[in-house]
Amino acid sequence: VNEPRTTAREPALDRTAAVADAVRDAHELGDFERVVELIGAALALDDLGAVTAGLAALRPPDRVDVFETFDIEEQRHLLRELADPVAADLLEELEDPFAGMIAAGLSPEVLAPILDEMETDEAADVLLDLPQGQQGAVLQAMDDTAEAEVRQLMAYPDDSAGGRMTRDFIAIRASDTVEDAIEHLRALDPDDGLVYYLYVQDAHDHLVGIISLRQLIVAAPGSRIGDLMTSDVLSVKVDDDQELAGQTMQRYDLRALPVIDLEDHLVGVITHDDLVDVLSEEATEDMYRLVGLDEQERPLDPVSTAVRKRLPWLALNLVMQLALVAALTGFRSTIDRVVALAVLFPLITAQGGNVGAQAMTIVVRLLALGEFDRAEVRQLLGKEMLVGLINGLAVGLLAGLIAIVVAGPQQAQVIGLAMVAAMTLNLTIGGLIGGGVPLLLHRIGFDPAVASSVFVTTLTDTLGVLLFLSIYLGLASWMGM
Amino acid sequence: VNEPRTTAREPALDRTAAVADAVRDAHELGDFERVVELIGAALALDDLGAVTAGLAALRPPDRVDVFETFDIEEQRHLLRELADPVAADLLEELEDPFAGMIAAGLSPEVLAPILDEMETDEAADVLLDLPQGQQGAVLQAMDDTAEAEVRQLMAYPDDSAGGRMTRDFIAIRASDTVEDAIEHLRALDPDDGLVYYLYVQDAHDHLVGIISLRQLIVAAPGSRIGDLMTSDVLSVKVDDDQELAGQTMQRYDLRALPVIDLEDHLVGVITHDDLVDVLSEEATEDMYRLVGLDEQERPLDPVSTAVRKRLPWLALNLVMQLALVAALTGFRSTIDRVVALAVLFPLITAQGGNVGAQAMTIVVRLLALGEFDRAEVRQLLGKEMLVGLINGLAVGLLAGLIAIVVAGPQQAQVIGLAMVAAMTLNLTIGGLIGGGVPLLLHRIGFDPAVASSVFVTTLTDTLGVLLFLSIYLGLASWMGM
Repeated sequence: VNEPRTTAREPALDRTAAVADAVRDAHELGDFERVVELIGAALALDDLGAVTAGLAALRPPDRVDVFETFDIEEQRHLLRELADPVAADLLEELEDPFAGMIAAGLSPEVLAPILDEMETDEAADVLLDLPQGQQGAVLQAMDDTAEAEVRQLMAYPDDSAGGRMTRDFIAIRASDTVEDAIEHLRALDPDDGLVYYLYVQDAHDHLVGIISLRQLIVAAPGSRIGDLMTSDVLSVKVDDDQELAGQTMQRYDLRALPVIDLEDHLVGVITHDDLVDVLSEEATEDMYRLVGLDEQERPLDPVSTAVRKRLPWLALNLVMQLALVAALTGFRSTIDRVVALAVLFPLITAQGGNVGAQAMTIVVRLLALGEFDRAEVRQLLGKEMLVGLINGLAVGLLAGLIAIVVAGPQQAQVIGLAMVAAMTLNLTIGGLIGGGVPLLLHRIGFDPAVASSVFVTTLTDTLGVLLFLSIYLGLASWMGM
Repeated sequence: VNEPRTTAREPALDRTAAVADAVRDAHELGDFERVVELIGAALALDDLGAVTAGLAALRPPDRVDVFETFDIEEQRHLLRELADPVAADLLEELEDPFAGMIAAGLSPEVLAPILDEMETDEAADVLLDLPQGQQGAVLQAMDDTAEAEVRQLMAYPDDSAGGRMTRDFIAIRASDTVEDAIEHLRALDPDDGLVYYLYVQDAHDHLVGIISLRQLIVAAPGSRIGDLMTSDVLSVKVDDDQELAGQTMQRYDLRALPVIDLEDHLVGVITHDDLVDVLSEEATEDMYRLVGLDEQERPLDPVSTAVRKRLPWLALNLVMQLALVAALTGFRSTIDRVVALAVLFPLITAQGGNVGAQAMTIVVRLLALGEFDRAEVRQLLGKEMLVGLINGLAVGLLAGLIAIVVAGPQQAQVIGLAMVAAMTLNLTIGGLIGGGVPLLLHRIGFDPAVASSVFVTTLTDTLGVLLFLSIYLGLASWMGM
């Protein structure tokens, strides 16, 4: 517990309350800068009572926004001085790498009791971000039960159901009465997570049913849980992908999803806030991959990290483009003879890339939402090709007119026709490639989003220009030019 | 209620139970085709008892998957014959346009009592998809309370908090005791939505607090709700955007978010399943817009719809590319003289488009997650430009080598240097354009995702090629070539 220090001007407790009030007022007015200023001033005076009171006047996510404005040594200083549950709340709310970075500067004696107070899944995430040596020391300093639970969670991959679940769930027995269950709830810390379901286990800790608080509250106190519970319970395995857990919760509209181990023991629960995080993460991941970004990249990563992650991809893309450069080199004498062809390349490549990226985005999103139906695959691909064909013909006619103007009187007919034909073919095939490549990747067990517009665009670019040049040459020789 | 019809072979009730058992078994084995076959066979025999029992053996989303395999007349036939609550469950689970399409073929006398049983927000969605004339007739045939509530919801835009909320929430008074509240809960239909919070109103229906079931269940029966409730409650206004509601629920980890009208009356609640839907919809919308797709497009829309929605966009893109074609036409004599330049264009355009799309995706996603911080804008743009500069130099050196090979001995030096310089500059500017355009759109109140790779790519394509050609000409004349 933190005793506020007195200053010459006013009694400490009054001042603490005044800071809290001022912070609350500024926050209600949406004046974030003033909130930061007030708490920062208290921190500068090392008036921890006022800092704590100011932070407590904010909702947890807002509290963390203020906390993040301090430098890392101030943050560590605060965590050392604050009561453990308050420090635990702060670390829980911080984004993944930051909590670990800050925690790495705290001694095991300071950090362990804070981790004891955290949700087990959040504590595991912080520990995983610590250097190996420190990890062991902190785990040993933790409370035995918490240590055991956290160690178990740390063993699961980050993107598995086991890595995402919390061990903080409320389990009861089928033989309990409603009164027993309510007594059990009363005995627990009311802040101990948000509860929606209680989980019913048999004597061997197998999950046999769930009961909602709604059911419990309206039931007669003497009734047996076993008679009231729902025994048809959906669950996932610890080693299932978190995306499957997310899709299951979304599809069946679940507030919480139990996670079982290989022997059907209940080992954890994935909760509503995890579902929301999974959905956001998976959407970000797909959007990033579609443009060739690493899904681990953060918007404000250091420049060196961003360069290291993106450069290999750009280089690979460049190497792939060599196919097109080589092909064009082969057609060099044709381009040399008819420069208008080169001037028109961008029309072909830009449109093909677009159509491919559109078909790909539709397929990737469909697969991500789990709304994928094998019977619909052929229908979808057929549709995308047909859309490409019709749009290709329409855009091709427009591009053909442009080509006629660019080509000049002598070549107008041949280049115009070649443009219409190449555009139509390229957009048809663009629909097929854009839709087909991610479907194929999915079928063979890869993430469909790694198809990414980079690859699809390279393919349609090369194909489109080659089609344009070949059709031109074919037409020209047929027409005896 | 549906009486199963008897057949010659076996008593109807046995058969009904047998179908349900068979469906349950097939479903547990994951054999969806067999489930469809069993229920389809019962439907073909017009054995509605067995159809209902088979459907009832499935979870609601699976039930709808089976229902969707029937043709629309069979679907309407089923809805007419099923008990209203069962029919209501089916219509609730169907995706938006389909529920309306099916409902459009039902008479007001059949449809109204089904809508009465549905969640008010879902009923409003179905009604909004009906033709105007039918809408009025169905509303008049509905139960008066439901009609009033649904009419109110129908007045709000689809993507506003009002259009997304449900009117099915449980309200109590601050003067009630815990016992009163529990009595009130008992009196309600236990299937009536999933409840997490009760909402506390004053005598004028203003929202004054919330109380969770968890708080209620552990409280003494005689305590007053006003003494237990949390009075610091977050809410949104009916006309706020659904995205704001989603971000608020996600940020503060809320299970449900109350919606108030302009006079602070509680008028509805946005629930957990709505949050999940909003997040998915907004992610799909951003992904679609980034490649120039209309967010209303569905993967299996008819070809004509897809063509109509995509063609104007492709045509616009083609017209924008005219800038590049015109610029290239201006450089025609240069290209005529040095064909190697044209062969190398694709290297420039492909890389610039990539880098722009990456910066844009990062910014669009950051804005969508509401993690946008004004102070970070300059930092982010500076970072993207610097990343573009370093990557541009690295990729440029590689591309310069390719250029030297393609150019041949005479032009090697000039073209190689021009390539390095143009690539470096273009990727630096690509980072600025990709990051800056969506930020600018956001600042002036547009959806940042409409920046879309299509526009950014056109800009970087044109700029990159112009840079390459200008730098080449400058170098060549400086070196006296």
